[in-house]
Amino acid sequence: MKYGIVAFPSKKLQDLANTYRKRYDPHYAKITPHMTLKDSFEASEDEIQTLVKQLDELAAKYAPLAIHASRISSFFPTTNAIFFRIEPTEQLAAFQRELQEQIPHGEMKHVFVPHITIAQKLSDSEHDDIFGQLRMTGVDEKDTIDRIHLLYQLEDGSWTTYETFRLSGAE
Amino acid sequence: MKYGIVAFPSKKLQDLANTYRKRYDPHYAKITPHMTLKDSFEASEDEIQTLVKQLDELAAKYAPLAIHASRISSFFPTTNAIFFRIEPTEQLAAFQRELQEQIPHGEMKHVFVPHITIAQKLSDSEHDDIFGQLRMTGVDEKDTIDRIHLLYQLEDGSWTTYETFRLSGAE
Repeated sequence: MKYGIVAFPSKKLQDLANTYRKRYDPHYAKITPHMTLKDSFEASEDEIQTLVKQLDELAAKYAPLAIHASRISSFFPTTNAIFFRIEPTEQLAAFQRELQEQIPHGEMKHVFVPHITIAQKLSDSEHDDIFGQLRMTGVDEKDTIDRIHLLYQLEDGSWTTYETFRLSGAE
Repeated sequence: MKYGIVAFPSKKLQDLANTYRKRYDPHYAKITPHMTLKDSFEASEDEIQTLVKQLDELAAKYAPLAIHASRISSFFPTTNAIFFRIEPTEQLAAFQRELQEQIPHGEMKHVFVPHITIAQKLSDSEHDDIFGQLRMTGVDEKDTIDRIHLLYQLEDGSWTTYETFRLSGAE
């Protein structure tokens, strides 16, 4: 089964992201707005039981993640995805590094750039138009993420939450 | 904020439900296939913190729920919703009753009929056509639900998981 690990920001920030995703993101209906912490990976039922224990430990170690969506950026020319950029912090980097080390399933596809996608799979000209507009609009939202979610993917591409982990530590 | 409490069945049963929902359920993109345990209700942040503790206790008391989707039924003429009927069991009834007693937010809109919706908001003639077909196809799937989910609703009508509760008791 295919799994992924994400953080859902506050309802306020999700609602804001959805105003764009509704129009510009074909994955809009497959999952609510999120920050990916670990790209999708294949794992068996047994492996997931081990992984759940590791996530329990990790979540017990880290404090809620302070995030700041500070501007609208694009991954162009790597991909045409447009996103809320989340300011990198020591805490976020340490958390994601430890997650990656402890859970080696799947490869890291990219360097970790914390973000919430708001548009993707655009043609080059659509991308240029839309990014030009959105960059001017910008975003400036601070938020606290006090839990992470382990998800699995259904055959139609949509994602269901398998389990949540409250960040209850001090780091 | 608007909350709801559901159980997501296994991926296999969700995939099966989605083969119908994709065509016949306008809520298809708002939430993955589920059995509603408590209809949506309004609650404040503070109330939710209390509710989470109550759900922790309830989940620690009950064993995983054995369910059997045994046939395809319809709520007609109350509504035109078509669903996988889940066989009523003592365990399921007791769990749902206790959930309702402990968490009095919102009213129970109907008698509890455990089900997984696969079609809704149909016209009367669509309902008759589709129900006629699906009733013949039927369903016969047993499953074990070992966790429940507290969800909240975004402005666009889609649902995000707030927290999961593992059923780890004996009842």
